[in-house]
Amino acid sequence: MDIVRKEGFLRLFAIVFLVLTACLMGFDSQTKLLFDTVERKASFNDMDALFFLVWIDAAVASYNVLHVLRCFLIPTTAKGDVKQRSYKNYWLFFFLDQAAVYTVFAAQSAAVEASAIALAGVRSLQWMKLCNRFTRFCIQIGGALLCGYAAVLVLVVVSSLSAFQLFRLYSPKKFLQLKGKLNDHHLLSM
Amino acid sequence: MDIVRKEGFLRLFAIVFLVLTACLMGFDSQTKLLFDTVERKASFNDMDALFFLVWIDAAVASYNVLHVLRCFLIPTTAKGDVKQRSYKNYWLFFFLDQAAVYTVFAAQSAAVEASAIALAGVRSLQWMKLCNRFTRFCIQIGGALLCGYAAVLVLVVVSSLSAFQLFRLYSPKKFLQLKGKLNDHHLLSM
Repeated sequence: MDIVRKEGFLRLFAIVFLVLTACLMGFDSQTKLLFDTVERKASFNDMDALFFLVWIDAAVASYNVLHVLRCFLIPTTAKGDVKQRSYKNYWLFFFLDQAAVYTVFAAQSAAVEASAIALAGVRSLQWMKLCNRFTRFCIQIGGALLCGYAAVLVLVVVSSLSAFQLFRLYSPKKFLQLKGKLNDHHLLSM
Repeated sequence: MDIVRKEGFLRLFAIVFLVLTACLMGFDSQTKLLFDTVERKASFNDMDALFFLVWIDAAVASYNVLHVLRCFLIPTTAKGDVKQRSYKNYWLFFFLDQAAVYTVFAAQSAAVEASAIALAGVRSLQWMKLCNRFTRFCIQIGGALLCGYAAVLVLVVVSSLSAFQLFRLYSPKKFLQLKGKLNDHHLLSM
């Protein structure tokens, strides 16, 4: 299996975990009667951090769908080599993948922090804990965050692979000089 | 200037920003009289997220100090080339640098999220905002978080550079095969 197919399958995994995270979180809600009179509904809209995580995960999943299409639909050479792209495209993919993984990771960390506060409260700031009242809701959020970490792990591997595909085109001797004095096409097919 | 020196200077920048973040946050405290009777002191210990950020930044700064020593003290060849390390060391540096940047970024994002809650409060959860009372404290935390983002940016560049130095040793044609059939030493000095 050539490297483009490997990348495609990794991105498929990432999409699965991202969509799972977004769905688990987005469809999580619990209604509870407080003080026998007030009805209170908990959903991911209550906290900005969860709201952003759902939409960022959805956006990065869509971005990866485009990459999967590229990986599986554009034909490679018979030797399983990459002939489809010039090194400039690799730079673009490198930057986009880095941006994707850091964005998802930031949203994930913020959501974990907000959930930790909701779980434990902060006594010195008089923020009370909430998960003793919305237990099932909080357990589902916890599951979603675990899936989110799986997605981040796969995205880290994907972004390393995209760095690998870019940087192996460069000379091991001189800084930022392509291997040999060949043009793009020749370089990629050698 | 060869690539090892470049890396050394980048890591120096990262250390400066990391130490600045940790100090701005660690030495930030404000005491205020609430309700004319209760004296209340705000410090970074009040929130776990800020506490962890200070210590993680300090740890990653120390790790980078070791790298700076390596970059400037171990001699390179006359051509400014890297002769000091085998490719296995590059793999180690690659993994450690990735771990460092993701750890700092996670701590940074969590601290930003906690600070956002402290700044705006979450009305639906009855978490009240705090920064209207501890204004100077909160402004200094904000400055520290800005420095933290600068540190993360530099660390991202450093980790890309470390990926570059590793992956350029590999063949552009075959997956994870070193260039040519040379041994480590020969490869790095060619």
